[in-house]
Amino acid sequence: MSLVTEFTKNTEDPLLFETFKPKIQAYKNELTAGILDEYKLPEDMIPNKFGVDVTKIPPKVLSENELEITESTGTVLEKRLQAGELTAVEVFEAFAKRATAAHQLTNCAMQLFMKEGLERAKSLDKYFQETGKTVGPLHGLPVSLKEHYMYKGKVTNAGYVVWVDRITNDWALTVKLLLDAGAVFYIRTTEPQTIMHLCSNNNIIGLCRNPNNTSLTTGGSSSGEGALAAMKGSVFGLGSDIGGSIRCPAAFCGVWGLRPTQKRLSMKNCASACTGEAEVVCCVLGPIARSADDIDLFMDSIISQKPWENDATVIPLPWRKVQEPGISTLTIAICYDDGVVKPVTPILRGLNYARQKLVAAGVKVIEWKPIEVDELVSACGSMYNSDACLDQINALAASGEPLKKLSKVALSFGCGEKGVDVTEYQRLALLRDTYRNVYQDTMKKFGIDYILSPAYVSVAAKPETVHYWGYTNLWNILDFPNVIFPTGLRCDPLVDPPDTSYKSRSDIEAYERGLYDDAKKFENAPISLQLTGKRWFDEELVKAAKVVEQEITK
Amino acid sequence: MSLVTEFTKNTEDPLLFETFKPKIQAYKNELTAGILDEYKLPEDMIPNKFGVDVTKIPPKVLSENELEITESTGTVLEKRLQAGELTAVEVFEAFAKRATAAHQLTNCAMQLFMKEGLERAKSLDKYFQETGKTVGPLHGLPVSLKEHYMYKGKVTNAGYVVWVDRITNDWALTVKLLLDAGAVFYIRTTEPQTIMHLCSNNNIIGLCRNPNNTSLTTGGSSSGEGALAAMKGSVFGLGSDIGGSIRCPAAFCGVWGLRPTQKRLSMKNCASACTGEAEVVCCVLGPIARSADDIDLFMDSIISQKPWENDATVIPLPWRKVQEPGISTLTIAICYDDGVVKPVTPILRGLNYARQKLVAAGVKVIEWKPIEVDELVSACGSMYNSDACLDQINALAASGEPLKKLSKVALSFGCGEKGVDVTEYQRLALLRDTYRNVYQDTMKKFGIDYILSPAYVSVAAKPETVHYWGYTNLWNILDFPNVIFPTGLRCDPLVDPPDTSYKSRSDIEAYERGLYDDAKKFENAPISLQLTGKRWFDEELVKAAKVVEQEITK
Repeated sequence: MSLVTEFTKNTEDPLLFETFKPKIQAYKNELTAGILDEYKLPEDMIPNKFGVDVTKIPPKVLSENELEITESTGTVLEKRLQAGELTAVEVFEAFAKRATAAHQLTNCAMQLFMKEGLERAKSLDKYFQETGKTVGPLHGLPVSLKEHYMYKGKVTNAGYVVWVDRITNDWALTVKLLLDAGAVFYIRTTEPQTIMHLCSNNNIIGLCRNPNNTSLTTGGSSSGEGALAAMKGSVFGLGSDIGGSIRCPAAFCGVWGLRPTQKRLSMKNCASACTGEAEVVCCVLGPIARSADDIDLFMDSIISQKPWENDATVIPLPWRKVQEPGISTLTIAICYDDGVVKPVTPILRGLNYARQKLVAAGVKVIEWKPIEVDELVSACGSMYNSDACLDQINALAASGEPLKKLSKVALSFGCGEKGVDVTEYQRLALLRDTYRNVYQDTMKKFGIDYILSPAYVSVAAKPETVHYWGYTNLWNILDFPNVIFPTGLRCDPLVDPPDTSYKSRSDIEAYERGLYDDAKKFENAPISLQLTGKRWFDEELVKAAKVVEQEITK
Repeated sequence: MSLVTEFTKNTEDPLLFETFKPKIQAYKNELTAGILDEYKLPEDMIPNKFGVDVTKIPPKVLSENELEITESTGTVLEKRLQAGELTAVEVFEAFAKRATAAHQLTNCAMQLFMKEGLERAKSLDKYFQETGKTVGPLHGLPVSLKEHYMYKGKVTNAGYVVWVDRITNDWALTVKLLLDAGAVFYIRTTEPQTIMHLCSNNNIIGLCRNPNNTSLTTGGSSSGEGALAAMKGSVFGLGSDIGGSIRCPAAFCGVWGLRPTQKRLSMKNCASACTGEAEVVCCVLGPIARSADDIDLFMDSIISQKPWENDATVIPLPWRKVQEPGISTLTIAICYDDGVVKPVTPILRGLNYARQKLVAAGVKVIEWKPIEVDELVSACGSMYNSDACLDQINALAASGEPLKKLSKVALSFGCGEKGVDVTEYQRLALLRDTYRNVYQDTMKKFGIDYILSPAYVSVAAKPETVHYWGYTNLWNILDFPNVIFPTGLRCDPLVDPPDTSYKSRSDIEAYERGLYDDAKKFENAPISLQLTGKRWFDEELVKAAKVVEQEITK
């Protein structure tokens, strides 16, 4: 695998970009103004250096009640809200405080609109008081949103400077369904330029930092969602994933994430530069959350509203109630190496730790032999850039904004700026469909229920360094669903030294493994894993991930 | 709408084609040899001219028992087989006789293998006698297959001369599932060159004739299935449809057909020249049958076997048991004119007749206003030919076979031989998705349950004349499912004169309406209609079509 092309097009125009700076400043000012005094973390609690675990800071300023609320899962909170034991306002204010602190400590938000959130919470309480009923299964739960879903009456920029003042006058359907289920909105979270980095940098609000170690990246592209979930600044949030954008931040930040099978949640009115992205490899929406049960609640609350009635591209598969599998009934194949880039020490430790725990619990554990990962990942890159990056180039050039390092990398994937012709495009689609069957048949042949693998070669990386998406985007091209969960382990310099004796098989492997150059720099980064199930069987996967995580973290 | 390009590429090579002639002859000889003496219609019963209704001929040579069997629906036959009241051999022999006659009278078969069918029937009877059980829900039912599905150990040519001796060593998955459900195979039916005509001509066995009037075409591309169903030579058959290929022959021949929503039945190992056809507009498999109940039986027998376990591209939507709707609860919008080519007299009569019957039954009937049919049909044409017809050109040029008139027309649809680039390809996909929602939203807005429309501008046409696919391929691009059913009416020269006063709005309209130049030529052609439902809700559609047909034919 190599980045087969280099991105050479010049989309930058400093003079043009200059004209956008006042708009960017206005946008940032509004964000700063969104940090309300009543929720604000005292300035002196904000560390003046990086490399800090800032997850420990908000608890210092929260009341016991606020702490209890924000430490709870959505499933627990919702029960208490439905029972009238908690008010929506009470819940909202706890999360508003914690989310505000999260933003101050990590730069995770693009928009904060706490007053609107509070009004919404009040109206929900009023409804409950007057009717004795809740409005839906998420009644009163503070839910965060990645920025690029259209939000009625607000700017939606999708990480592009040109759209920094573009107000969208409609709702993304999935956002609207969350709202109708009773969610309270108050924060829209950050994403990288082009929404195509496993990192966070953009020319609007800049980098977002990993709460576990602020020298590191949150991953991306649902960068702000990853940070906010680790900071417990929302119950759960809506992310999106076409190459790892839910899973990478969930893994890097040490929380849960589901990339469901495509066309189960609606993509209607999600903004991006890529008009054609829904065809050969599909972006999907999904939750970044703090427990398997919350993923279940999230998915059920949307799908029970029959999104297919408002979006003909959604498949009418109900979100089924399934039982947790008995742990000892499972056969799990572990992928220790995808044959392209071997994971570094802490990830291998996580995999081995998981294996031991699972074997001890009676799981049948076998080794997963990688299948044509190189070709599939390269094909996926060509799918992203099949239009010769035209849509993205146009959106970038429209403001002349500086091109971020990782935008350049993403624009060079596969065919890069050369694009493909329709014959090649269809060949890629055929390759995809062929390997969907090869993978499914292989799982069937060996009786494999789930595949356990890394989400990335390493733990959270240094900002703007990750080039290799293979551990996540393999599954985007195959469209097998994945759950990310934390193992409870963290990178520990004492036990996770880089393996300096390893001989890399390629430039990309040497580059990627070389990033893990000094374990100390990665201290406290969560070690997370990815569980992959069969296409369309998301419900079973979530339940399996629940029991697997329970066993591993016992 | 116009055929925006002309197909100018020369794929013909008479010298090369000469070298294929012995292979074609061998193939034809085998077909002739498949007409067994024991099932053969006496030569003197074969009319020596066209323009004949040959459906009336086989009953003259069938025994009372054979007649009763072949006149029965699959649903009824299967009950009797399961109860042991009929043997598989008894059923098979009746259909073998009628299918052989059907082929002699219409040229509907590409392969006949009656001995294998008989052996299979015998083995099913043996199994039943020994175990008291049937092998599955189609136990002992004679089922026909369009030729282009891979059949283990037999030639699969997909209508191309180059493949006239290509033996395929695997099963098409859907065919295998029919077999596993208990079907008996004995006939593979004809299709046109490129499988892209709403007609039947190819350079292997030539034209197939409409049983109701042998001067007319069966339609296509499931041409042989249409003829065989009208001749009652199988219980039902497996067709395929990317532009009307199930619906057109069902309509022209006066039988039932379902084009289900995509990815409900597996396309695995269906042969065609188009490697990329599954991406932007999808071919689907579906039944050509003789009743709504049989469509239900057919679909259920396959989907209950969970095809998604053997094909990851199939969506795990079970075939649901749904109730027939009360006729008076329905709101049906009737499309009298798609705004591109207005239907001719007998079709308008059929629509008006249906309207009267439905209104009398308490159906809320409104008029369907066409939505951008021109643009969508043209887009669909560009989707077919997006690769600049490369795959088809290569398959044609490989034998240098003469290019059939309607192949040339299909290769000129939309972008034609110019093809499109990826940007345009993705724009077409976006247009498709946009209009799927526009159509769904429109149905929702007006409370429309189903849309009733023609399947084509006219009744069965003269061979090799149909250019306009808009009444069917509109629904391929939108992927809304359709059922074709006969109204019981037939073209009648006394009441269906051409409307010579009509002023055509375009060349294509003038051409297509001009084909209906003399009602006498179309005498006895069935008047069929098309009922369209919501995407994925195939089950409800089939039940609705059942009650609608019952009402109209009362």
